Amino acid sequence: MNILQEDNIDNAVSVFRSDRQFIDNSNSDIPPRPPRRTVTEEVGSSSGTSTERQGAPNAGVKMYNLVILIIDIVAMLVRWIFYTLESLYRLVVPPAADTVHNDIVLITGAGHGMGKCMALQYAQLGATVVCLDINEKQNAETVAMIKQQRGNAFGYVCDVTDRQQIIGTAKRIQQEVGTVTILVNNAGIMPTHPLLQQTEMEIRKTFEINVMAHFWLLQSYLPGMLEKNRGYIVALSSVAGLCGLNNLVPYCGSKFAVRGIMEALAEELRQDARKPNIKFTTVYPYMVDTGLCKRPHMRFPNMMRLVKPEEAAAAIIDGQRRGLVDVSIPKYLLYLNTIIRVFPIKVGTLLRDFLDSGVESDL
Amino acid sequence: MNILQEDNIDNAVSVFRSDRQFIDNSNSDIPPRPPRRTVTEEVGSSSGTSTERQGAPNAGVKMYNLVILIIDIVAMLVRWIFYTLESLYRLVVPPAADTVHNDIVLITGAGHGMGKCMALQYAQLGATVVCLDINEKQNAETVAMIKQQRGNAFGYVCDVTDRQQIIGTAKRIQQEVGTVTILVNNAGIMPTHPLLQQTEMEIRKTFEINVMAHFWLLQSYLPGMLEKNRGYIVALSSVAGLCGLNNLVPYCGSKFAVRGIMEALAEELRQDARKPNIKFTTVYPYMVDTGLCKRPHMRFPNMMRLVKPEEAAAAIIDGQRRGLVDVSIPKYLLYLNTIIRVFPIKVGTLLRDFLDSGVESDL
Repeated sequence: MNILQEDNIDNAVSVFRSDRQFIDNSNSDIPPRPPRRTVTEEVGSSSGTSTERQGAPNAGVKMYNLVILIIDIVAMLVRWIFYTLESLYRLVVPPAADTVHNDIVLITGAGHGMGKCMALQYAQLGATVVCLDINEKQNAETVAMIKQQRGNAFGYVCDVTDRQQIIGTAKRIQQEVGTVTILVNNAGIMPTHPLLQQTEMEIRKTFEINVMAHFWLLQSYLPGMLEKNRGYIVALSSVAGLCGLNNLVPYCGSKFAVRGIMEALAEELRQDARKPNIKFTTVYPYMVDTGLCKRPHMRFPNMMRLVKPEEAAAAIIDGQRRGLVDVSIPKYLLYLNTIIRVFPIKVGTLLRDFLDSGVESDL
Repeated sequence: MNILQEDNIDNAVSVFRSDRQFIDNSNSDIPPRPPRRTVTEEVGSSSGTSTERQGAPNAGVKMYNLVILIIDIVAMLVRWIFYTLESLYRLVVPPAADTVHNDIVLITGAGHGMGKCMALQYAQLGATVVCLDINEKQNAETVAMIKQQRGNAFGYVCDVTDRQQIIGTAKRIQQEVGTVTILVNNAGIMPTHPLLQQTEMEIRKTFEINVMAHFWLLQSYLPGMLEKNRGYIVALSSVAGLCGLNNLVPYCGSKFAVRGIMEALAEELRQDARKPNIKFTTVYPYMVDTGLCKRPHMRFPNMMRLVKPEEAAAAIIDGQRRGLVDVSIPKYLLYLNTIIRVFPIKVGTLLRDFLDSGVESDL
């Protein structure tokens, strides 16, 4: 597996990193690294004298910067090829799955569907499971089922649209259970009808549960993960978060948002000086038989069939344990979407019409 | 331009459409088109007798369906190639720009930045411009400037986070100005700091202005467009709606959401039986010098420079008039994003580090 140790490449090229580029400063012998240039500063000295102030860069410095740039580009291309080959290799041999038996997993919407299945399966893998749901009875059922199987489970009733409740519950969980290291943002709703027939309440609820709750939960549990330097954040997006579907305008908006939040937060932590060991997995299920899809239709039921929530849960947990960034269910949809996006929009429409699969209005 | 008349192809293959596929029904001579199969029905007759009930399909019908499927696939591939070639052609020769001098354009956030520039430019093109802004003074200024240039403008003070105000204003505009045929959802905010330092109020406001307002405005103005059978909907997303950026987690969520909403609504209206003549343009600016980007930095200022709001406005209006679905500013970023997405995620990170461009926390 030595060839896949990217650190080797990292070290090899680190001396040529872009922040080592510098501009001439005649006053000192050792050229200092310039502060990051922000454009407002440039605008401040708008008369174009900023280079004059620091002395015009001489030919040597220009040449040096050019060489650095060329080396940077070559290094980038080498890594580009390496990462692509690595990724193809990983399609065949996925990364090893982490164990979860020392982890505390928090799952929202654990009383039903995929949330319930994930709770049961995480418990079977030895994790301590914290079940959150607005429905006390269903949540208690999941906890009871786990305990019956001698699993370790705690239940908390929580309305994820209520930020104060989320924060309060997080404090109790920290005291009563410990630091959550796997957060599964699963709870979601899916009102299915044309935009003009969606009520204000439906649209607001869709965003409160499917999006805003993620913020409050992230703000509640991320600090603990940062402190422990161990964390996995799993968020349920949807195939409706990869491409727009009719009867689902607000839902698509909310699921695209989840993708954006996950991508941005992963990037933010990647650039964090602490280099925290926190992994992100965004999940894009197509139709899962959880009751959300009330009137699905499809031309090729074998290819696009309704997935059972147990199967979906297993795929999500597998993705989390292997640290996969994106997991679609079924798997091929993510690749299909990526390939189709290279072609014009009409090609996507074409394939959509060919597959003729979607959900009818539930009104 | 005959070769680009897609209707020709449409007509040629329409006889082979998938909904013409049928299953055998021995009781009648003319096989009826089956109702759309929904999976709940299949689950209802779970014992697998559904085919028996209707009589097992005979070999002839199976063969017929197979032939239809093959023809469907061939027709799809022919169109696939055609659309791809058309699209490449359109890169060189974009579609003609529609005139706007009979249109009523509504622009949110018209008191400042790109909104103001769009208002002025639409007026110069002869459109009637309706300026919406929460800031009465700035909004009145834009209206006054347009009138000074002998343009046609109306101003309404409106807080787009207030659904009732949006609906009330829409009624007044319908009566006092007429039916809005171009809606530009432009107003937006961009709090720029790490997620853990974003306050509840900031996150909520980001979504209320950048996302929820789009729903209320769409619900207010879409019916008029449907009635007139003419409409253009323009929404400001962002490069932060194409890929995740640090210090911008909620903003990225909101701008991804805009993309999802636009894609889903375009798809919903495409499938609408009325076949409404409404076009959608989503805009992805990188950094525009409107004051939103407080502390930008970039390695290659020539390539990634701050765009002037006037230039951005011109690009948006051009995109709307040509009916372009996606417009990034600068233009190449959309293609760059599409190509990079084909490669593993690490390649995107690589390029991002190479370009070393983004916004610093504003705290």
